[in-house]
Amino acid sequence: MTMIDGRTGLEKLGHQACWELLERGGVGRVAVSIDGSPQIFPVNYLAFDNAVYFRSAPGAKVRALVNDRRVAFEIDEIDTARRTGWSVQVTGRAEVVTDLGLLRELNARALMPWAPGVKPLWVRLSPVAVTGRRLPQPRR
Amino acid sequence: MTMIDGRTGLEKLGHQACWELLERGGVGRVAVSIDGSPQIFPVNYLAFDNAVYFRSAPGAKVRALVNDRRVAFEIDEIDTARRTGWSVQVTGRAEVVTDLGLLRELNARALMPWAPGVKPLWVRLSPVAVTGRRLPQPRR
Repeated sequence: MTMIDGRTGLEKLGHQACWELLERGGVGRVAVSIDGSPQIFPVNYLAFDNAVYFRSAPGAKVRALVNDRRVAFEIDEIDTARRTGWSVQVTGRAEVVTDLGLLRELNARALMPWAPGVKPLWVRLSPVAVTGRRLPQPRR
Repeated sequence: MTMIDGRTGLEKLGHQACWELLERGGVGRVAVSIDGSPQIFPVNYLAFDNAVYFRSAPGAKVRALVNDRRVAFEIDEIDTARRTGWSVQVTGRAEVVTDLGLLRELNARALMPWAPGVKPLWVRLSPVAVTGRRLPQPRR
């Protein structure tokens, strides 16, 4: 069954559809409040076993992620020319991964980090809510 | 002069380079705190005259944008295969556009909205800070 939001006209994606899109991995965006103001930054990420993982350099972002622990993560794919697209958002709690077995698995699964700087930390985002929206195909 | 962040290895983009990228328009992401938790949503946007504009349906997002007024907006272009990319972030204050002349200009400049639902509000983001980062070209 397709659920359409009556206010926005967007189709709601089910939980499984959201995770299938998340598990493709690639590039997403993380938002966290730093000193009360949201900040957005793009990350390479992995998603498996009901969690989202990304690397980050130690610094203000990671401190805010772990201290505030209320984090949003978003992926989307939008085709301006064809007016189609979808987005998936995960909100939840962030923590620095310290489990050695999991760190080994992450490093084995991961692409190289984007930035040439050292990024020794893996952050795990444990979802509290996962939501997705898709623009319905235009009628012909 | 190219500025490289010693910690992340990312090249910092100057103010003018950031605005040249912003003024291309297209799709960006907005982050705002709703009940203390950041939320990210993709938007079609326009940027001109030192401000960023996007449409939104009336609802919790717009209320949070305008009440909290501390909003982050981000655009990026990342090529996973070639390991290149950049991102620009604008943080600032949001307000609903009510000036009729400006509304006419926005509607004349704008693409059609993405979602088929009614989106009668234009939100103006007045920048407090604009920052950009670019991944340096890999050495050969």
